[in-house]
Amino acid sequence: MRRLSVDLAERSYPIVIGEGLLARRDLLEPIVAGRSVAIVSNVTVAPLYAAALRGALEGAAAEVIDVVLPDGEAHKHWGTLNSIFDALLEHRFDRSSVIVALGGGVVGDMAGFAAAVYQRGVDFVQVPTTLLAQVDSSVGGKTGINHPLGKNMVGAFHQPRLVLADVGCLRTLPDRELSAGLAEVIKHGAIADTGYLAAVEHDLPRLLAHDVQALAAAVAGSCEIKARVVGQDERESGLRAILNFGHTFGHAIEAGLGYGEWLHGEAVGAGMAMAADLSRRLGLIDAPAQSRLVDAIAAARLPTRGPAWPAQRYVELMSVDKKAERGTPKFVLLEALGRAVVRRAPDEAVRATLAACGGAA
Amino acid sequence: MRRLSVDLAERSYPIVIGEGLLARRDLLEPIVAGRSVAIVSNVTVAPLYAAALRGALEGAAAEVIDVVLPDGEAHKHWGTLNSIFDALLEHRFDRSSVIVALGGGVVGDMAGFAAAVYQRGVDFVQVPTTLLAQVDSSVGGKTGINHPLGKNMVGAFHQPRLVLADVGCLRTLPDRELSAGLAEVIKHGAIADTGYLAAVEHDLPRLLAHDVQALAAAVAGSCEIKARVVGQDERESGLRAILNFGHTFGHAIEAGLGYGEWLHGEAVGAGMAMAADLSRRLGLIDAPAQSRLVDAIAAARLPTRGPAWPAQRYVELMSVDKKAERGTPKFVLLEALGRAVVRRAPDEAVRATLAACGGAA
Repeated sequence: MRRLSVDLAERSYPIVIGEGLLARRDLLEPIVAGRSVAIVSNVTVAPLYAAALRGALEGAAAEVIDVVLPDGEAHKHWGTLNSIFDALLEHRFDRSSVIVALGGGVVGDMAGFAAAVYQRGVDFVQVPTTLLAQVDSSVGGKTGINHPLGKNMVGAFHQPRLVLADVGCLRTLPDRELSAGLAEVIKHGAIADTGYLAAVEHDLPRLLAHDVQALAAAVAGSCEIKARVVGQDERESGLRAILNFGHTFGHAIEAGLGYGEWLHGEAVGAGMAMAADLSRRLGLIDAPAQSRLVDAIAAARLPTRGPAWPAQRYVELMSVDKKAERGTPKFVLLEALGRAVVRRAPDEAVRATLAACGGAA
Repeated sequence: MRRLSVDLAERSYPIVIGEGLLARRDLLEPIVAGRSVAIVSNVTVAPLYAAALRGALEGAAAEVIDVVLPDGEAHKHWGTLNSIFDALLEHRFDRSSVIVALGGGVVGDMAGFAAAVYQRGVDFVQVPTTLLAQVDSSVGGKTGINHPLGKNMVGAFHQPRLVLADVGCLRTLPDRELSAGLAEVIKHGAIADTGYLAAVEHDLPRLLAHDVQALAAAVAGSCEIKARVVGQDERESGLRAILNFGHTFGHAIEAGLGYGEWLHGEAVGAGMAMAADLSRRLGLIDAPAQSRLVDAIAAARLPTRGPAWPAQRYVELMSVDKKAERGTPKFVLLEALGRAVVRRAPDEAVRATLAACGGAA
């Protein structure tokens, strides 16, 4: 079991990583003792893990209810969020209640946002069950829902009280979702730590084989990088934006295809390859660095090209990105492997990248 | 022009009170310069004041759009909130945008909540146009929407950057709404300052006659009390709860009648009379103190009794109150005029109060 910390003064919290943590009452009891708890999960995750988690919570909590959502990014909207409020209010949950998010990124984002705004904010715990959620979305307090005109357009910064990353859940994770999680793992190496990137490249065969030891190390390394960045810039006024490497292009792909067509990590895989291409065109990295990153993305079984759309379609989709200012997107680019920077890019370079990488292989 | 300050470290902000402030570009420019601004108002307020405010913003802001909501508490729900997001996204408003709430408490709560969660939070300015909003809801950062099972059940603490209370707007405020605002004015005196209460009692005839000088003094006094309380307890972990004096009973009345049937201030008027009755039953205040407060409420042309419901109906409606803990409501009571305390009350005393005051006059 490894324990890390996200340092945010009175909002600091631990991330605990290991196998079998779901069933560990000792880890949950300090937060839920005597309180009403809602386990928010979805129809796929609940049958696998809700009983074990409920077993750990019962006895410690005053009351435990289950809120089971439909599965998938297509349901990450107000209607689903409101079904959480309905359940909490029907059970008369008050401000001292605790929401436990059990699932992947979509469940975590929605349950976290519900916690952020239910009665103006209640405590919540993240129990991420996918690699993507364990290495990325469960840490840092970004919560929210989608709007037809953009992803995560409505949300809040609301830090969990605890993140429990049970890597045992990854044994049964579908291969496609495992690869999607590796996109964020590779991202963390690319933007902040070449040593970590090299270790991940070396471990890729074990990671793809769902080796729990290798996965625990990858999760810990990613959380360490993310916790460091978030600790320096909780609300993304500066540094934190580097965590969006690959996401400006990636969000355009997701929005253009309709959420859920590609997994988020797949869109980020292609988006990172596109951002690397743009970085090279602007003279920030050389061709071998670009190739190394693209090879790692491909080796993780992720796409390295976006859909074959006209450049103009990408440009329009990117103009509503949250990092855009007055319609002009900013890009997270690499100055070197292991070092990212946020800047605007000339239109011609962006269009050249879109022409080169915006044609699905 | 009077200027107060809400002291909340990096979230501190000024409250400016006076006549004609709506049209003062100098007050708004520091916040909106070069940014996209949405004026959120409603169908009643927009024709009266939106043009003047727009005139002050144009030239300073990069772009000004109008978002006009339907009028009334019955519309304080997700559907209306979402129409704000639609407008912001259609105009590609980004994280640097500013939302200006122009209207009463409902507009301020919804526009403020939209600002709290649009792209995980943008700046906002309160321009309250009703007495209730000027003395209470525009200050302190409470924002939110209603749920069929409870008022303000979904929301956020999100402080404005500036509150502009233009008392000139109160000249044309309907008498019924003026009285509703006086409920919160009387409340501030009752819980925190007998000197202020006495001044308000003395000024009631001028206040009811829409005398702008008297109103400016009342607004300033109320904001001073509220700013002091909020500055000590932003997120209502303790002291701030005293601002809910009259609100536990009042919210039950509003929820039971359906939001909007009585004005919020009317329900608070009756609720304060009920809370005073309960305080006297518990031996906290004497009968003359109770009478003095009830007389002031009546003199402000507010109800001093709730609807004639069975006690059990009130009890059920109060059990979902946000101040309830595991279904048991807490009450804000008076230890003396000018001093409030939050505590539980024995069932028999609560039921006696409901029997005595829960019969509409």
